[in-house]
Amino acid sequence: MPYDVAILGAGPAGLSAALTLKLHNKSILWFGSRDLSLKVERSERIANYPGVPMTSGADLNSLFQKQLDEMGLELTDRMVTLITPAGKSFMLLADNEIFEAKTVILCSGTAQAKGFPGEAELLGRGVSYCATCDGFLYKGKTIAVYCGAKRYEHEVADLACFASEVHLFTPYVDSEVDLPNVRRLSAPIKAVNGGMRVESLTLTDGSTLPVDGIFILRSAIAPATLLTGLEMDGPHVLVNRRQETNIPGFYAAGDITGRPYQITKAVGEGNVAAHSVMEYLTEQEKA
Amino acid sequence: MPYDVAILGAGPAGLSAALTLKLHNKSILWFGSRDLSLKVERSERIANYPGVPMTSGADLNSLFQKQLDEMGLELTDRMVTLITPAGKSFMLLADNEIFEAKTVILCSGTAQAKGFPGEAELLGRGVSYCATCDGFLYKGKTIAVYCGAKRYEHEVADLACFASEVHLFTPYVDSEVDLPNVRRLSAPIKAVNGGMRVESLTLTDGSTLPVDGIFILRSAIAPATLLTGLEMDGPHVLVNRRQETNIPGFYAAGDITGRPYQITKAVGEGNVAAHSVMEYLTEQEKA
Repeated sequence: MPYDVAILGAGPAGLSAALTLKLHNKSILWFGSRDLSLKVERSERIANYPGVPMTSGADLNSLFQKQLDEMGLELTDRMVTLITPAGKSFMLLADNEIFEAKTVILCSGTAQAKGFPGEAELLGRGVSYCATCDGFLYKGKTIAVYCGAKRYEHEVADLACFASEVHLFTPYVDSEVDLPNVRRLSAPIKAVNGGMRVESLTLTDGSTLPVDGIFILRSAIAPATLLTGLEMDGPHVLVNRRQETNIPGFYAAGDITGRPYQITKAVGEGNVAAHSVMEYLTEQEKA
Repeated sequence: MPYDVAILGAGPAGLSAALTLKLHNKSILWFGSRDLSLKVERSERIANYPGVPMTSGADLNSLFQKQLDEMGLELTDRMVTLITPAGKSFMLLADNEIFEAKTVILCSGTAQAKGFPGEAELLGRGVSYCATCDGFLYKGKTIAVYCGAKRYEHEVADLACFASEVHLFTPYVDSEVDLPNVRRLSAPIKAVNGGMRVESLTLTDGSTLPVDGIFILRSAIAPATLLTGLEMDGPHVLVNRRQETNIPGFYAAGDITGRPYQITKAVGEGNVAAHSVMEYLTEQEKA
């Protein structure tokens, strides 16, 4: 049996959708970290979230976690790398496993809204999202790893067992990877270059770094790479007031749909998306 | 100096907009009751509002009130009965006083989304929204009063001083009005009838009640009556994803824009409306 809904992302939009769908007894496959949103967690001060007077992001995130436990909601910390419509449902590929859901709500935030230039084009030809799946392919080779969050650093270590040389890029400063063949680079990645396969990276300092491949470890990947044909509005997923995308059964909510990048806006959209999912499921049952 | 923004309604959408606009130092004229939303207050159980695990409406409303005080937000409990665009701002008529605001956010809820049939047509010709303004016009006459909330009952008493006979309609059961010339009717109003002036009411039991006028005491009135030319979508105000209506500078948020009638959706829309207002004000300053 497919799940009623797959929710991608554990920020405020994902939580809001999950709470409402759980309340209505829908079966939920929720992809995300139990840490929930790092962006919320790291907000110094939140003064305009109704119902939670003047708070820190960390405190609000704790409330979110408490609520998730009370409602018996569970998360799976896998990265979905491909979604394909299949009849009346969607197939989701996550860490080499396949899941099926009747509907999808994409709420993976703005950080993942855009991939690196060249990333989508070279996916499967030197660009990989899965260390455990593809690491062995780079035995003795030179690779780059973009590690989007500290909790993926164990995958960097896995990769360093195969590759002879690893160039590590992280959006945070306190990396704990300390291995002889891993070198941390400070200039961020500007683009992934190659013809038939990945050949090099261009960095923001203008330099070129030759590599045989690049592993991109993020909690989610660019929407247009994830699901072919998904209509975008610049870097954002295009939705209407019901949070519907151009693909029936596929919804988006939160920062990924555009400004304002606000917790309050995100929870509102998650709620609306959940209601649209429920209406869609009811209609599908009738059909 | 006109206010930067007038907010009509003190439910979750209005509060959310007010919090954000206050945080950005906008001057706010906020119409609503300090009791905030009765609909929230009377919700037995709220399980899907992110950040406030399993709560009662009354408790959530208390949190809202606490937050309002902490932020130094103030409300004025007047009823706005007419809004007119005037150059680059709006004139608002409330209890016979005129206020000016550069922008308006309408979030008066769904209960007020629709007036009685005939109400808009006969406004000022026997239909009045203001007891203190028009009461004296009905000395010795027979009137009807629709009292939308208990907190307006003192106005019913005022009207009973002038009118010889008052037919009282209330959507709640525990009316405390006890006056010899006030009679409470149980069948609700179906329509207001009249040619040049109000002549009678049709009740839902099919009967006709002759009256010289009707006072409609509600916290807000039907949007299309409030602002001529405001585009509706059935009983709801038509908005886009930025909460813009068809009238520049005029926004709507919360239940008044349609389903789902959810607190979470309402706070999200209030937040978005506030951001749209700020962008609009910035553009107007440039122009």
